[in-house]
Amino acid sequence: MQERAKETRRSLLEAAAQLFAEHGYAATSVNNISARSGRTSGAVYFHYAGKEGIAVAVVRDRFADWSRLAARYADEAVPPVERLVALSYDIAHALSEEPVTRAGARLWAERATINAPLPDPFALWTAAATRLLAQARLAGQLNAHVRPAHTARALVRAFFGLCALTEALESTAVVIDRLTDWWQLTLPSLQPQHQPQPQPVREDPSTAQ
Amino acid sequence: MQERAKETRRSLLEAAAQLFAEHGYAATSVNNISARSGRTSGAVYFHYAGKEGIAVAVVRDRFADWSRLAARYADEAVPPVERLVALSYDIAHALSEEPVTRAGARLWAERATINAPLPDPFALWTAAATRLLAQARLAGQLNAHVRPAHTARALVRAFFGLCALTEALESTAVVIDRLTDWWQLTLPSLQPQHQPQPQPVREDPSTAQ
Repeated sequence: MQERAKETRRSLLEAAAQLFAEHGYAATSVNNISARSGRTSGAVYFHYAGKEGIAVAVVRDRFADWSRLAARYADEAVPPVERLVALSYDIAHALSEEPVTRAGARLWAERATINAPLPDPFALWTAAATRLLAQARLAGQLNAHVRPAHTARALVRAFFGLCALTEALESTAVVIDRLTDWWQLTLPSLQPQHQPQPQPVREDPSTAQ
Repeated sequence: MQERAKETRRSLLEAAAQLFAEHGYAATSVNNISARSGRTSGAVYFHYAGKEGIAVAVVRDRFADWSRLAARYADEAVPPVERLVALSYDIAHALSEEPVTRAGARLWAERATINAPLPDPFALWTAAATRLLAQARLAGQLNAHVRPAHTARALVRAFFGLCALTEALESTAVVIDRLTDWWQLTLPSLQPQHQPQPQPVREDPSTAQ
């Protein structure tokens, strides 16, 4: 792609992300994106085939592609569970502050109103978390009862719910504090010194009788 | 209110809830609610002042009002943390299967597109969870490091994120299994026998260097 076309695509993407993050998908028009970016409406259609296309590109650009964070959890000198915790703070910061990431999260929440399939933004986080937990297990740094894939799945979903609801009910300013509360609840179960493991919780109505 | 008016209100509410749960807020019209309920469009305006009003009523009816579940966690013969776990399974079942609750959750997720303030559906859960944790503390059944209000807040948000994302990424059929995975991760930190408590996780970029 020519340098100039790349610049146009980028400025359209960033303008659209700001608008989606601020106003949501339904309230953002191609004309708004054109006005914010200083490019023509035709450029939106030419480069992204319209509003749906630019929404998919926003989700894919940052929210579904965490390769820029890879460096953070590739350093094998740091214990894997510590890297997992650090990664979660990075993602929480991005979800609170970084416009393209914020837009991706909001678009995903509004996906029912978007007439295009969005990439699954959690697949890469979950794969990264699974890998880190598997490394921790190999290093003898994981509770023997933790199954990496199951645990990574639960962690990613609980983490995202925590961040999204904290922003909705309070503000982005307290997301990091709430994340620390949550890790205090969660981290002990990952660590090998935690013995004995309690009985698994089973759904059993008799326990509440 | 006359019995007949109550019946009309209820049938409108249930028809609207089914439609909101299946198709979302934007794709549901007053005409659809009228057709599904077998009542007139005028009845929607008369009893609920329109689509916004009936959406607020749906959220308030079940999702924000868990008094029918109160019996489950009022039984003081059962340890409070067990009641908290049982309550979470009850809510997860309702979010998976009960149309008015499902509609409430979906409307809350789509709240940016609804031109009316929705009640906060988490306030009552969080208050109930705080109360149960405080009772557990009084009974010597809670880890000394757990602060009931902070922990309840984190638990409710993580729990809801887990249920909502599990439904979105997999299906309602596995919500209960994923909830069990999550409690296995979370419950040990609540229990008093868990000693020693690890150091709190602090946001500290140096840990990942």
